[in-house]
Amino acid sequence: MDLHQLPSKLLEKTVNEFSKLPGIGKKTALRLVLHLLHQPNEDVEIFTGAINEMKKNIKMCDKCHNISEDELCSICSNPNRDNSLICVVESIKEIIAIESTLQYKGLYHVLGGHISPMEGVGPKDLNIDTLENRLKTEPISEIILALSTTMEGDTTNFYIYKRLSQNNISISTLARGISIGDELEYTDEITLGKSLINRIPYKGR
Amino acid sequence: MDLHQLPSKLLEKTVNEFSKLPGIGKKTALRLVLHLLHQPNEDVEIFTGAINEMKKNIKMCDKCHNISEDELCSICSNPNRDNSLICVVESIKEIIAIESTLQYKGLYHVLGGHISPMEGVGPKDLNIDTLENRLKTEPISEIILALSTTMEGDTTNFYIYKRLSQNNISISTLARGISIGDELEYTDEITLGKSLINRIPYKGR
Repeated sequence: MDLHQLPSKLLEKTVNEFSKLPGIGKKTALRLVLHLLHQPNEDVEIFTGAINEMKKNIKMCDKCHNISEDELCSICSNPNRDNSLICVVESIKEIIAIESTLQYKGLYHVLGGHISPMEGVGPKDLNIDTLENRLKTEPISEIILALSTTMEGDTTNFYIYKRLSQNNISISTLARGISIGDELEYTDEITLGKSLINRIPYKGR
Repeated sequence: MDLHQLPSKLLEKTVNEFSKLPGIGKKTALRLVLHLLHQPNEDVEIFTGAINEMKKNIKMCDKCHNISEDELCSICSNPNRDNSLICVVESIKEIIAIESTLQYKGLYHVLGGHISPMEGVGPKDLNIDTLENRLKTEPISEIILALSTTMEGDTTNFYIYKRLSQNNISISTLARGISIGDELEYTDEITLGKSLINRIPYKGR
């Protein structure tokens, strides 16, 4: 289907706007726009209003760069969180993923990406200075590096480790190994090799 | 990833709104919303503005129910179109598809769906009365039924045929057969059977 023949300029403009979203092609954009066109006016106003209100009122947390409606995010301002622990993540998507495990009660620090010379992202483009400042002003005893297990993630881990290791804190990273439920046969050789090198004492059930 | 743990109510509301769109689940909605959150304010205003403006200004064509910015759509108001031909379609998606073939110069009529007792859609819910009126007021000589090749499409075709056949017009439907480029081996038996029954004289190249 060639979309050069849309019956209205307004429709065409909206389809173009939708197709700027990640993973949304022209055909999907048209489907979404036609759906909106058949919804009641009030529903569409609620849709666009929610986006505008979110965009206007959401800011970044002054401390950890998580998204927040106030100066401090709901995690930084929660007195029940363990403020001696900082988990360093690339984006708020990882915060959402880690929070959903219910296994972590410390604070976070959002870097805003990873070091990637290919994409022109250097340490200066990430929130590393503010992380270093937090070590001076907050009672941090441990930093957990929770970046992607990619070349870029490893580079970023190493850079942060080198830069922060002279402080009197422990620096850890997430355990890597075979996923729960995975069969050895189908595990990639790098993961399998690493999990052999980093084997852990068997504790029974 | 459990999305009950979103760090902001405003974010959660916007994610919920996005996940009401067809084919957009919670995870995709979150991805789209985080993308918008990282775009410049002006770009997001253009996005929501395009939707609101489209919603406010697009209406249905008085004649054919195609979407339009004026009382008559760009096809009905085009003097170069053949006004003796009406192609009956379910929705404007089919108009876009047929227009992109550049093979049709007549007018259209959008039914707004097909007869489907399962979904509670009867003839009264479709734009069939207005189609009948057009036969009285416009110089129509042929109606082309271009509905889906499904049970519901066939039922609707038959209903329209029964209702309009007493008028002095010819009623045709799209040719059905093997798609260009298809291999016989992989053609479904119903299509292959129909294309044998409805075989056409071979005209050479």
